[in-house]
Amino acid sequence: MRFSPLLDELIKSLQVLPGVGPKSAQRMAFALLERQRAGGRKLSHVLEQALDNIGHCRQCRTFTEEDICAICASPKRALSGQLCVVESPADVVAIEQTGQYQGRYFVLMGHLSPLDGVGPEDLGLDVLENWLDAESFDELILATNPTVEGEATAYFIADIARRHGVSVSRIAHGVPIGGELELVDGNTLSHSFMGRKAFSE
Amino acid sequence: MRFSPLLDELIKSLQVLPGVGPKSAQRMAFALLERQRAGGRKLSHVLEQALDNIGHCRQCRTFTEEDICAICASPKRALSGQLCVVESPADVVAIEQTGQYQGRYFVLMGHLSPLDGVGPEDLGLDVLENWLDAESFDELILATNPTVEGEATAYFIADIARRHGVSVSRIAHGVPIGGELELVDGNTLSHSFMGRKAFSE
Ligand SMILES: [Zn+2]
Ligand SMILES: [Zn+2]
Repeated sequence: MRFSPLLDELIKSLQVLPGVGPKSAQRMAFALLERQRAGGRKLSHVLEQALDNIGHCRQCRTFTEEDICAICASPKRALSGQLCVVESPADVVAIEQTGQYQGRYFVLMGHLSPLDGVGPEDLGLDVLENWLDAESFDELILATNPTVEGEATAYFIADIARRHGVSVSRIAHGVPIGGELELVDGNTLSHSFMGRKAFSE
Repeated sequence: MRFSPLLDELIKSLQVLPGVGPKSAQRMAFALLERQRAGGRKLSHVLEQALDNIGHCRQCRTFTEEDICAICASPKRALSGQLCVVESPADVVAIEQTGQYQGRYFVLMGHLSPLDGVGPEDLGLDVLENWLDAESFDELILATNPTVEGEATAYFIADIARRHGVSVSRIAHGVPIGGELELVDGNTLSHSFMGRKAFSE
């Protein structure tokens, strides 16, 4: 025997969360029952609401409970003529926090991964093509991750963009600002050598 | 702007879970929305059920959705005449897994901690006294944690038990079986010296 049936079920259900195993699920269940009953009730309610209502933006595929997300709905954003392709909604947030970019996004919700059965249609590339057909962008910025899959995905999308007559750029990769050379991995370092630019005084 | 209002609310609500900060809450929200919608719905439902129905066993105070937990309800358990006092339901599970103990438990749901305002009544020691009044136990086993608070709590409960004419024991502390002496902390090692026993050949 372990716990009561309902407590066992709660501990099991919590393990749907990424990175939560039996031990931390048990700790979570106890904390909720002992001192977070109001917060736990809120979580149960918000989780249900979120699962019922959050889907993907019809245009850029990011998570939203609206038909069109706030960024896509902003007329100011359309003025830039730029479209930045990222792998996940978290990437959108990271880029937004820099305050540097004023264009729109296309969120792949993943990357090409033939071994896992993730093909172009799973990344909504048909949606992207329709968008490129409907609107003429000046620039498509590839901001997929600098991984094997992210690079392959970037190449694939660059082809699509060029077929639609959109010029394509890729965000720069290299030694992080403030990073120390000796602490950077070899792959990043060779990338930063290959990507070197003329030094302007 | 961060995420859509509902997604923001989900990320905030998940942080009620112990050890979950903004970053892992975000990762959890994405995982649930991307690929665990059924599991997330189940979690929402079970969590609500658990919060509505799980309370404390009227006799031993452990978590249960029944009035009396399965261990307290078992006639076989009553035969032993033993009562083991622990700090949390997780301790009950740990002891049950040894298969060594056949008696009943009293779960404090914490330990005495005057600085945090946790006094005898918060640990249900009135419930324990009533139980000791109603039933004559042969032995009360103190299995609170070997911490300052756990020890103070053990002393306090030992007094209560003796007043009720119940003999009191404390579980042994020392070098863990299979543990290496040099890796054990000094406090544990001095404990294991003070608790030494005549060596029987
Ligand atoms: Zn959008
Ligand atoms: Zn009980």
